[in-house]
Amino acid sequence: MPTDLILEVFIIKALFLNEDLTLSLEETEKPTLQNPTDAIIKVSAASICGSDIHFITGEVALYPNDRFIIGHEGVGVVEEVGSMVTKFKPGDRVAIPAGIACGDCIQCREGRIYACEMNTLFGHGRIKGNLPGLQSEYVRMPLADRNLVHIPDSVTDKEVLLVGDVLSTGYIGVINGKPKPGEDIAIFGAGPVGLCAVASAKLFSPSRIILVDLEDYRLEAGLKLGATHIINASSTNAAKEVMKITNGVGVQVSVDAAAFPETINNCLACTAKGGTVSVIGISPWKIQFNMGRMFFNNLTLVSGYTSLHEMEHLVKMIEFKRLDTTPIITHEFKLSNILEAYRVFQNRLDNCIKVMIVPD
Amino acid sequence: MPTDLILEVFIIKALFLNEDLTLSLEETEKPTLQNPTDAIIKVSAASICGSDIHFITGEVALYPNDRFIIGHEGVGVVEEVGSMVTKFKPGDRVAIPAGIACGDCIQCREGRIYACEMNTLFGHGRIKGNLPGLQSEYVRMPLADRNLVHIPDSVTDKEVLLVGDVLSTGYIGVINGKPKPGEDIAIFGAGPVGLCAVASAKLFSPSRIILVDLEDYRLEAGLKLGATHIINASSTNAAKEVMKITNGVGVQVSVDAAAFPETINNCLACTAKGGTVSVIGISPWKIQFNMGRMFFNNLTLVSGYTSLHEMEHLVKMIEFKRLDTTPIITHEFKLSNILEAYRVFQNRLDNCIKVMIVPD
Amino acid sequence: MPTDLILEVFIIKALFLNEDLTLSLEETEKPTLQNPTDAIIKVSAASICGSDIHFITGEVALYPNDRFIIGHEGVGVVEEVGSMVTKFKPGDRVAIPAGIACGDCIQCREGRIYACEMNTLFGHGRIKGNLPGLQSEYVRMPLADRNLVHIPDSVTDKEVLLVGDVLSTGYIGVINGKPKPGEDIAIFGAGPVGLCAVASAKLFSPSRIILVDLEDYRLEAGLKLGATHIINASSTNAAKEVMKITNGVGVQVSVDAAAFPETINNCLACTAKGGTVSVIGISPWKIQFNMGRMFFNNLTLVSGYTSLHEMEHLVKMIEFKRLDTTPIITHEFKLSNILEAYRVFQNRLDNCIKVMIVPD
Amino acid sequence: MPTDLILEVFIIKALFLNEDLTLSLEETEKPTLQNPTDAIIKVSAASICGSDIHFITGEVALYPNDRFIIGHEGVGVVEEVGSMVTKFKPGDRVAIPAGIACGDCIQCREGRIYACEMNTLFGHGRIKGNLPGLQSEYVRMPLADRNLVHIPDSVTDKEVLLVGDVLSTGYIGVINGKPKPGEDIAIFGAGPVGLCAVASAKLFSPSRIILVDLEDYRLEAGLKLGATHIINASSTNAAKEVMKITNGVGVQVSVDAAAFPETINNCLACTAKGGTVSVIGISPWKIQFNMGRMFFNNLTLVSGYTSLHEMEHLVKMIEFKRLDTTPIITHEFKLSNILEAYRVFQNRLDNCIKVMIVPD
Repeated sequence: MPTDLILEVFIIKALFLNEDLTLSLEETEKPTLQNPTDAIIKVSAASICGSDIHFITGEVALYPNDRFIIGHEGVGVVEEVGSMVTKFKPGDRVAIPAGIACGDCIQCREGRIYACEMNTLFGHGRIKGNLPGLQSEYVRMPLADRNLVHIPDSVTDKEVLLVGDVLSTGYIGVINGKPKPGEDIAIFGAGPVGLCAVASAKLFSPSRIILVDLEDYRLEAGLKLGATHIINASSTNAAKEVMKITNGVGVQVSVDAAAFPETINNCLACTAKGGTVSVIGISPWKIQFNMGRMFFNNLTLVSGYTSLHEMEHLVKMIEFKRLDTTPIITHEFKLSNILEAYRVFQNRLDNCIKVMIVPD
Repeated sequence: MPTDLILEVFIIKALFLNEDLTLSLEETEKPTLQNPTDAIIKVSAASICGSDIHFITGEVALYPNDRFIIGHEGVGVVEEVGSMVTKFKPGDRVAIPAGIACGDCIQCREGRIYACEMNTLFGHGRIKGNLPGLQSEYVRMPLADRNLVHIPDSVTDKEVLLVGDVLSTGYIGVINGKPKPGEDIAIFGAGPVGLCAVASAKLFSPSRIILVDLEDYRLEAGLKLGATHIINASSTNAAKEVMKITNGVGVQVSVDAAAFPETINNCLACTAKGGTVSVIGISPWKIQFNMGRMFFNNLTLVSGYTSLHEMEHLVKMIEFKRLDTTPIITHEFKLSNILEAYRVFQNRLDNCIKVMIVPD
Repeated sequence: MPTDLILEVFIIKALFLNEDLTLSLEETEKPTLQNPTDAIIKVSAASICGSDIHFITGEVALYPNDRFIIGHEGVGVVEEVGSMVTKFKPGDRVAIPAGIACGDCIQCREGRIYACEMNTLFGHGRIKGNLPGLQSEYVRMPLADRNLVHIPDSVTDKEVLLVGDVLSTGYIGVINGKPKPGEDIAIFGAGPVGLCAVASAKLFSPSRIILVDLEDYRLEAGLKLGATHIINASSTNAAKEVMKITNGVGVQVSVDAAAFPETINNCLACTAKGGTVSVIGISPWKIQFNMGRMFFNNLTLVSGYTSLHEMEHLVKMIEFKRLDTTPIITHEFKLSNILEAYRVFQNRLDNCIKVMIVPD
Repeated sequence: MPTDLILEVFIIKALFLNEDLTLSLEETEKPTLQNPTDAIIKVSAASICGSDIHFITGEVALYPNDRFIIGHEGVGVVEEVGSMVTKFKPGDRVAIPAGIACGDCIQCREGRIYACEMNTLFGHGRIKGNLPGLQSEYVRMPLADRNLVHIPDSVTDKEVLLVGDVLSTGYIGVINGKPKPGEDIAIFGAGPVGLCAVASAKLFSPSRIILVDLEDYRLEAGLKLGATHIINASSTNAAKEVMKITNGVGVQVSVDAAAFPETINNCLACTAKGGTVSVIGISPWKIQFNMGRMFFNNLTLVSGYTSLHEMEHLVKMIEFKRLDTTPIITHEFKLSNILEAYRVFQNRLDNCIKVMIVPD
């Protein structure tokens, strides 16, 4: 480590998830460079993810011990870079992925950086190697050259805020289905990930984009993002409705952005011969389904959680106005007001879909 | 063959290409069913292709002997079907491919029906198996179930007229390049095929669609179809201009819809590392180019002439308003006036790009 | 239909599955040409499939009404062809697929003839369109040009007997996993399909081919066909053993040729990140499994029942000695002795794996 | 750089390419760690590449100024690693790629590390970033975790010597053609790269592997590596001979490992409809060929120079005895005798194909 590092300590604000599952906005030490491949980023916008809610409700209890800084969605400005960082310099605006890829393992070498063996995420607590999160004023970014993506001047923070997590997840949900233009796509779940899948599906010019959810305000957001048909599953059998819309053929690609046993089975039931069911939600359940249908219909079921290797393309599409996820971001809060942001987001108050947290 | 065929002879009008390369609109016998897999189609709209012009100018002299009915682009209405035809019935509106696939050869069995070993085209003269063309009131369609495509009620003849030839060719030019959303695509040549490639490129949501031609009115038509940048190559070095527009990176996919030595080399010069040059024009020339550039830039050069296996998807995209090639069809003529249509099309009078021929 | 068909009736022997699920070898009318695209084939070798056993035990009760000629695996010699058949002539030796593809539907047009919408199989009873089976002296083959494959002179009936069903199924089990040379493949189930998957896996030069079964004599047959490791799952946890053999990485492709809930879950448990589980057995069960593992390991689960579009390649590989499935055929019987063949095959007597039925 | 580096200078032997294109084996300073991601490797075996000969003959004059250590093929033992290297430790045996990938650029991120924008090769002189070569006792390896590959204990240096260059090049020549088992492959050129392509082709179980060259002893080496047919092109028209062998169909994949205008045109002339011509030689010529044939036969021409992203798979296949390139290495010399090795290799004395250089 460079010997000329000034060891003065700066204080910043960050949101901690405590051991009792409470959240507290506190002062803490500003992160510093630890490796010559690191960068220090000033967070200019962050968001709250459904996973964050799972942590505080205890639904996902994978990380049981110490308190940690939460948050894994955000964008920022480079403040300082290590001596081996060559692609970024102080002042550069950057999109930050939810997790980092090592670039060295067999998964990374073959282009599947989403499956990187290092498996390190921001704001996920005490798993080996996990990193202090992005609901903070500053963050340390390891392997900066490999993982950061430049934000063009013409692109706003809001436009690019979702690219490092929910958009990459919605996008992989679609591309894993290998859709061809003119085919039909159904998306189950109109939360932030499902809505990003709608926007992603539109990029492939499917004939129909059919969106299924239980809440009308989210389905209506889907219409703005490109859905051609919406189904409120609270009042109808969604799979049968999809079959009806597609004249009994089914969709070539179904994306399950909810990952309940019901939604996966609905996807299987309305996917055409030779088609693909792509699951992008985390499913804690043992799913039970009819393999015979998969066999006789030559179906493929694929799962996977993000397409970080596509972040550069996603940012470029945002730059060129091919892709716009801003309708998903319904609310904005200051960092000092982040606990209120959590309350609104968690309880879906005021038709909230996704929040943006900006510095004070 | 069925013994109950009524052997009465009906007379229709059709355009003949004579041995001296003149065209003449004449009366001839209406075609009849010859196999139980045939259909008889009443042509409701036809078009003239650049290849037709090559025939009458003698540039393409592949078919030297007898006179034949010309034309290989059209749509129609089924009038009569053979006993083994099950998917079509009299009254059905159908898109007709420029050529027919046997469905039996190894190429067809593996989904490359564009490379079918039977290699039979409408209106191409005396090559073994070639078929009387579509610039006619009626046409016999062999292997109807395999080759015809239904036109939905909501789709007009004009909307679907190009699907059986220039649109399928423009489309394969793009899909052979395997574009990913967000990549950049350049298209050289803004004739009907190149303009169809522009409309096809847009389906994949590239960041940039750069169109190159020598004529401003065609470039402007390209803007309507989705081009984001246009280059008039008469006044600039097109390859350098493409490199400049893409910040020195080049395009991931370049489509050569002209197939001149200059355009192919321009494509090679402005295609990014790992990219693809897709050639869809017929090139009578021996092309000379720098293999070293291909090697060190890991380029792929791919050629092929149509994507008839995609006709159903193309029609569906037209139905769902994802794809609209009507701006390419600038003029309309009655069949009785087809010689005037040839004059306007061949000489590019009145900013003509493509003509539609309808029954009298 | 041709009017010159000689309407003399010939009598042949064929095996019937009766309504009470008994089998009886009986005399019946020899099939005749019904369409100009038909061929009549003299069966020179047939086999018994596990599915046939499912019929007679009543495990698969899909076809409840009339009696029918059973059998869907066989090879033969063309005796007569319809007027539109151009690729085959009397005397040609042919491999017969278990089912026929129409060549016309969207599935066939896109090269997925295994998913043909016509879905017609030999010897499966009264499903609409199903065809009298191959455990017979003669069989009518519809759409002959589309579906038959020539057998080269140098190839014996025994060498090619399995190509139309179990080999095509084992092969698609492997190719659906998209194995790359050097990767590891595990195959669960060493019945005829699983053993064909072993022989198919070897074609892709995987580092390891790990075969799992409960019976030692079948595992030993697997070693002859190319397995590098065998696991008798009656005495060990097969998934853990596979993980141990692969140094904790898992296999890139696992093929489930048994399709029990246990084997599918074993496949999921021992497949490496980014890998594929390919299921080729018919599973009557609702399978329950952990979607979370699929999600976090980016797994793909694919199913589908045969690769008939690959029959020509398979026959060619047999011709060129790349592929040899004869070790799977352990017993040979005359047609007149076919009931004994059923007894031996069904009860796995004398280490029977697969039987060949030849004419008397 | 760490301040505690011992600055003692060690002296090693290395082969220099001088400005006058002479070679001289000289003493020079042993390389030292320069970045925490570096490793220092003791070379245990190196080889001479055809490219090295091009340098000394002046045929390739890309690097005009200073003298440099030559050589870009080799294997070694890790002696020392930087502080950020985690996958390798002193004593590990490693395969060294001809060039290094950054892991950070868009090409690397998408799995095309062969097209890495850093483009840094060992032993290629004064191109920006190029590295002292491997015909030396020691070499500095930048980005060690990213680029080195472990050699298993059971694998000898000789078995793995070619993996970092000619084998990776021969292999990409084959995989760029996307061969399916049972298809036919022709390889033009039986030098080290062409012979590696033969060994690579065999991994995909083609029906025929047809090898073309002008020298019988090299063709015979090809037979040992898996060629099924050999053609000495000095006495016959190679393309016509390939067509004859394939019954007029042509090969699905042709690999041009010579990259002369004649060989590329031969490849085009003998490649089947829908097939691929894969060029892996460096061609200084402008190649002239018939685009019309490419168009009407739906051919693909692909070029690219190495598959370093496949090194781990290649080493694994060597470990599991799927792949053996040792018949290509015909001669062995000590480093002190390397000038004699150059003489034998360059002049193809004593039927030399490839040499191995080992430490004194």
